[in-house]
Amino acid sequence: MRTRAAVALAAGKPLEIMEVNLDGPKKGEVLIEVKATGVCHTDEFTRSGDDPEGLFPCILGHEGAGVVIEVGEGVTTLKPGDHVIPLYTPECRQCPSCRSGKTNLCTAIRNTQGQGLMPDGTTRFSMLDGTPIYHYMGCSTFANHTVLPEIALAKVREDAPFDKICYIGCGVTTGIGAVINTAGVEIGATAAVFGLGGIGLNVIQGLRMAGADMIIGVDLNDDKEEMARKFGMTHFVNPSKIDGSVVQHIVNLTKKGDDQIGGVDYSFDATGNVKVMRDALECSHRGWGVSVIIGVAPAGAEISTRPFQLVTGRVWKGTAFGGAKGRTDVPKFVDWYMNGKIEIDPMITHTMPLEEINHAFDLMHEGKSIRSVILY
Amino acid sequence: MRTRAAVALAAGKPLEIMEVNLDGPKKGEVLIEVKATGVCHTDEFTRSGDDPEGLFPCILGHEGAGVVIEVGEGVTTLKPGDHVIPLYTPECRQCPSCRSGKTNLCTAIRNTQGQGLMPDGTTRFSMLDGTPIYHYMGCSTFANHTVLPEIALAKVREDAPFDKICYIGCGVTTGIGAVINTAGVEIGATAAVFGLGGIGLNVIQGLRMAGADMIIGVDLNDDKEEMARKFGMTHFVNPSKIDGSVVQHIVNLTKKGDDQIGGVDYSFDATGNVKVMRDALECSHRGWGVSVIIGVAPAGAEISTRPFQLVTGRVWKGTAFGGAKGRTDVPKFVDWYMNGKIEIDPMITHTMPLEEINHAFDLMHEGKSIRSVILY
Repeated sequence: MRTRAAVALAAGKPLEIMEVNLDGPKKGEVLIEVKATGVCHTDEFTRSGDDPEGLFPCILGHEGAGVVIEVGEGVTTLKPGDHVIPLYTPECRQCPSCRSGKTNLCTAIRNTQGQGLMPDGTTRFSMLDGTPIYHYMGCSTFANHTVLPEIALAKVREDAPFDKICYIGCGVTTGIGAVINTAGVEIGATAAVFGLGGIGLNVIQGLRMAGADMIIGVDLNDDKEEMARKFGMTHFVNPSKIDGSVVQHIVNLTKKGDDQIGGVDYSFDATGNVKVMRDALECSHRGWGVSVIIGVAPAGAEISTRPFQLVTGRVWKGTAFGGAKGRTDVPKFVDWYMNGKIEIDPMITHTMPLEEINHAFDLMHEGKSIRSVILY
Repeated sequence: MRTRAAVALAAGKPLEIMEVNLDGPKKGEVLIEVKATGVCHTDEFTRSGDDPEGLFPCILGHEGAGVVIEVGEGVTTLKPGDHVIPLYTPECRQCPSCRSGKTNLCTAIRNTQGQGLMPDGTTRFSMLDGTPIYHYMGCSTFANHTVLPEIALAKVREDAPFDKICYIGCGVTTGIGAVINTAGVEIGATAAVFGLGGIGLNVIQGLRMAGADMIIGVDLNDDKEEMARKFGMTHFVNPSKIDGSVVQHIVNLTKKGDDQIGGVDYSFDATGNVKVMRDALECSHRGWGVSVIIGVAPAGAEISTRPFQLVTGRVWKGTAFGGAKGRTDVPKFVDWYMNGKIEIDPMITHTMPLEEINHAFDLMHEGKSIRSVILY
C-alpha cells in the first residue's frame, strides 16, 4: 500500500511530506493507522543530526496513537479495530530483561530496532523508487500508516481521544513513570525538577500524584512558572536570578525544623544538560537523596561528580520511558487520564496537520509549545 | 591522666610514640582503654598528607576495641567494664538522619568530629606542654586510652577477642555492610569486586553470605587470588593479563543462557581509584546493575560516565561504614564472628605493639599485610 509520511531525507533538513510505499505486516507484526502523534525533542535530536546513531532516510515519530488495520501471521493479542499506542520500548514478557522483573528495557528486538529495521532485518517503508526508508525507534508515527511488532503495541480503551493519549506514548509516561517507577517517591517527600518542558511538567504532576509536600521547579525561563504551578509545583527557582549556586539555594530552601542539612529527597533532570544533571544530584539530601536522569545528553557528553557525593548516601539513577512496561502500564495511564487522575489537555498547546510538521519543530525551538500534536 | 599514644605531629611524618595528657570524660562522654586497633588505609590517607582535611598534631586510629574505664555525667547505656567498639559513624537515634530510617549517617556530632574535636568543641588530648592534640574520626584509637561520646560506642559481648573484633570497627562492617545494607544483594546474584585488599575480601565474604552465585574478584596483583578464593571468590580477573577492557571481559564472563547482554547484577569498588569506579559501574548489567563505591578517592578526583549508562538502568551508589548503624549493627557483626558466620582471623596477618606502628604502614605500602593490628 501507499501512505503519506513526513520523511527525514537527510540530517539537518526539514522533513518532506510525500507518498511512500508500506509493505503489509509480516509474521508477528501489525499494521496500524496513526490517528495522532506528538512531536518530541528526541525526534528533533535525530532530525537535526545531533544523534550519532541517526539513519537516513527515515520516518521519525514515536509518540502516537491509532487503530489496528491488519494483523500478520501469529498475532493473537490484537485485531483490526483495536485502539493502540505504539511502544518504542516493547514488552515481550519472554526475554531475560522482561523476566527479571527489575527493568522495563525489553531486549527482544533491541538490535534491529537500533538499526532502523523490523525484527526480520528489513524495512516496511520505501520511497516510490524503491529505496528503503528506515524505521525510527520502532515506531515511525510521522506516517499515516505504520507497521510495528505486536509486542510494541499497547491496547488501550476505545473511548480515549487519540489527540491526547498519543502523549502517553512518550512524555506523560516518561515523566510520571520517573517519579512512581524509578524514584519511588513517597507521600510527604521533597523534590526538585530541573527543566519545566513537557517532561518536567509530567514529573511535577507525578510528584503531586505521589503526594510530595514540596515540589521545586527549576528553569531559566520565567514563563514556565505559571503552567508548572498549575501542575503542582510549589516553589519556582530561576537559577539566573538568585545569588550563588542553585544547589546551595535548594539546600537552603529545604532546611526544616532540626534538619539543617537540607537537600531534596528526590531530584529529576529533564534538561539533558550534563552540568544540570550534576546540580540535580548534588542538591539532593545527604544520606538518602535519589537523583534521576531523564534527559538525553548530547553525544559524548559525560556526567561527573566527586565520589564523596555518593559515599555520603546519594543515589544516581536514570530512567527510560519512565521505567514503564508498555503493554502493562500504558493502558493504566490511559485510564488515569480518562478518570481525571492525570492531566494532559493543557500540555497539548498546538495541533496541526502533517503538512505543517516543520512548524512544530520551529515552535519547539522557539520555546512556544509544550507539545505539538499532528492530527492525520 | 596520662596515656601512651602514637602521635601524628605533621603530615607525611612517621608517627611518634609518646606520653600525652588525656582529660577525663565530660558530660555524655566515656573514657575507654583501647585493647587493640587495626591500621587502615584511611589512617594512612591522613598521615601521608593526602587528606586535605587532615589536622595536626592528631592521634589517628579508628578501628579499635576496648573496655570502658569511666563514664561522664548523664551516660546511661554504658558502665565501667563494658566491652566496646568505637564508632566513627555514631548512632544517636535522635537526629533527622537517624530518625529517617534511610541512612546510617548520624549527624549529631558531625561538625565537631570533622574538626577533630569532641562535641563541646575542645580536645581531651594534649601534649605534655599543653598543646592540644586533635581527635581523629572521633575515635583516636592509636592511644592506649581515649575518650568518645556515648553515642559513638557500640557495646559488644565480653567473650569476643579484642584483637579480632577491632576489625569490625571499620573494614569488616564496611565490606559486608556494602553488600547487605547498601546493595541488598539477593541469593543467586552475580557480582564483581574491584580491589582485593581488606575491604574487598570482606565484600567477598558478604557476597558469599548473601548467597551470590558468581563472585568475580578483580586485582592487578595475582598474589591476592588465593586468599580471595578462600573467602568465596569464584572467578579472578587480573586486568593486566587479559585482552581488551576489563568491562568487556566481565560482560562476556557473565553472559549465560539466553541473556547475551551480560554484566554483573552488583559491583563494588574497593580501590578508591575513580577510573576503576567507572569500570565497576559499566560492567554492571543493563537494566538493573547496581554499583557501589566504597573506596575513598584522592582529594579533587571525580567520577564520570555517559548518562546513557544510568538511563539504561544502572544505579550508582556509595556506602560509608557499609550503611551500618553502629550501635545496632556492630554487636550483631560480633555475634556473627563468634558464631562462625563470618571470618576475621585469616585477615589479621600481622600483630605488633604500638611501638612498631610505623612498620604497619610499611607493610601496607608493600602490600604484605591485609590487616595489621596493634595490641596494647
